[in-house]
Amino acid sequence: MNDWALAIDIGGTKLAAARVRDDGRVQVRARRPTPVTAAAEEIWQALLSIVADVTGGETPDRIGVGCGGPMRWPDGDVSPLNIPAWRGFPLRRLLQEQHPQAVVRVHNDAVAMAVGEHWRGAGRGTTHFLGVVVSTGVGGGLVLDNCVVNGRSGNAGHVGHVVVDPAGPPCACGGAGCLEAIARGPAVVARAQQRGWHSQSAQPSALDLAEDARRGDSIAVSAFADAGHALGVALASVAAALDLEVVAVGGGLANAGDLLMRPAQESFELHARLDFTRDCRIVPADLGDDAGLVGAAAFVLAADRYWPAGAD
Amino acid sequence: MNDWALAIDIGGTKLAAARVRDDGRVQVRARRPTPVTAAAEEIWQALLSIVADVTGGETPDRIGVGCGGPMRWPDGDVSPLNIPAWRGFPLRRLLQEQHPQAVVRVHNDAVAMAVGEHWRGAGRGTTHFLGVVVSTGVGGGLVLDNCVVNGRSGNAGHVGHVVVDPAGPPCACGGAGCLEAIARGPAVVARAQQRGWHSQSAQPSALDLAEDARRGDSIAVSAFADAGHALGVALASVAAALDLEVVAVGGGLANAGDLLMRPAQESFELHARLDFTRDCRIVPADLGDDAGLVGAAAFVLAADRYWPAGAD
Repeated sequence: MNDWALAIDIGGTKLAAARVRDDGRVQVRARRPTPVTAAAEEIWQALLSIVADVTGGETPDRIGVGCGGPMRWPDGDVSPLNIPAWRGFPLRRLLQEQHPQAVVRVHNDAVAMAVGEHWRGAGRGTTHFLGVVVSTGVGGGLVLDNCVVNGRSGNAGHVGHVVVDPAGPPCACGGAGCLEAIARGPAVVARAQQRGWHSQSAQPSALDLAEDARRGDSIAVSAFADAGHALGVALASVAAALDLEVVAVGGGLANAGDLLMRPAQESFELHARLDFTRDCRIVPADLGDDAGLVGAAAFVLAADRYWPAGAD
Repeated sequence: MNDWALAIDIGGTKLAAARVRDDGRVQVRARRPTPVTAAAEEIWQALLSIVADVTGGETPDRIGVGCGGPMRWPDGDVSPLNIPAWRGFPLRRLLQEQHPQAVVRVHNDAVAMAVGEHWRGAGRGTTHFLGVVVSTGVGGGLVLDNCVVNGRSGNAGHVGHVVVDPAGPPCACGGAGCLEAIARGPAVVARAQQRGWHSQSAQPSALDLAEDARRGDSIAVSAFADAGHALGVALASVAAALDLEVVAVGGGLANAGDLLMRPAQESFELHARLDFTRDCRIVPADLGDDAGLVGAAAFVLAADRYWPAGAD
């Protein structure tokens, strides 16, 4: 058996692959933008090319994948919201065909991130942990009693759809007032624009907004603060329901640092008032872009905690 | 070994004990009002008297207890909010001293209710289940992958403190807008009174309010509807975070039936719009007052699912 696993991280903007060692260290990485195409095959070939870059001719015997949802889990037929060309795409089966001897496991990318942070990042050593990704969407993954929680259909951890304000803005899910509807990057940018923010950039992003906020633009600051407050409320709810030890927040928007995290902490402290919820700590994620790769590897390298028996 | 366990259910208004058979059937029950007293010993003696009623001289070898929280778990030092005479009361130790040979396990009464409903009631046969008690307070317990979830300190399941409206009324926990602040019985009654409801009763209860609502009193109906809507929002949040199969709602307020459950269902459907949350069913609890006793018994009779290894 190799002393490494092939880890794959598939998102709407980038594809990444890595060799991850038994101890969770990333040996080699490759990445490329996700092709913008209607051709499923083209994205598949792009993926194979970065896989070849990191395997370098060796045959992986363990393959772990984090991919944007939704998906049929654990079957691994994926329909990533942000990859319209893949609908019911049989990712796991195709990888298995490429490597018939390998164990292949596919899970939600937010679960991979959370598992990565629990195994080797900000959640290391904790028993009850939530990892949250605040990015184009808002997702998450749960580790309770040191084991990943999958839910009935592999969808546990969708904290982006915790309701933080029933009278809040409509959400892409069809509901209203979900954390994601308020805190996802594009929503934060749109809110700032509605309040009169004008970016220098042609296609203003949360990054541009964060820059302006750091320069003191009060509209930009308040747009992040609203996202942070919503995040704090949602985390207080989840902490009460689950009696968590640590929540780690990652994803592109978390790079805004205190712009997001300080209001999140404030709201959390306002609402998390039971003794056991007060003790729950909100921290930044540790592994950055590697979290998803490390977590994907954990599905096959640390399966006792991160992959349920019988789910292959 | 006996073919039954001693089950005990301790609340602010009543104490109950039962012999519960290996298969979860309740053989004998006894109950009495919780003495209203500042003397811890008096309540303890009242408890011993109903225990004697059901054991009838036989010696229990397995004792399961559900008790109002908070408590130190699994130590079983209890400080039930509604029994001020017991503060740090060493319930488990005292029961153990009475029955040195017995296995004694104490957990939160809402967890006991949820476990009872999962073992033998509305959650039977499901793998991912939430039991909710809507009563003087709002509590709950979680069963994920067929195993009870305890959380870091035994406090998982506190769904009463899921935030349903960050700008909502203050909660006894110190937060605001918690489900419990809106849906607990006394809050529902107070809301009706503020809106002009006058009861015939000297000390109007949720029971009186439900009667008036059934007679068509629109203020009474709306007070329940607000509680139901809050419940539906909270359940949508928890269903998204945990990918649940069934939620069972019990407790005194659930006896109001459709007055509570129909608006809860409506709000749930408005907010639970992901494929997997839509599939989650909200149902009334099945076992009534027995749920807590059956669940307490399950801590010792079906420990593989309902009591974590190593938590004695």
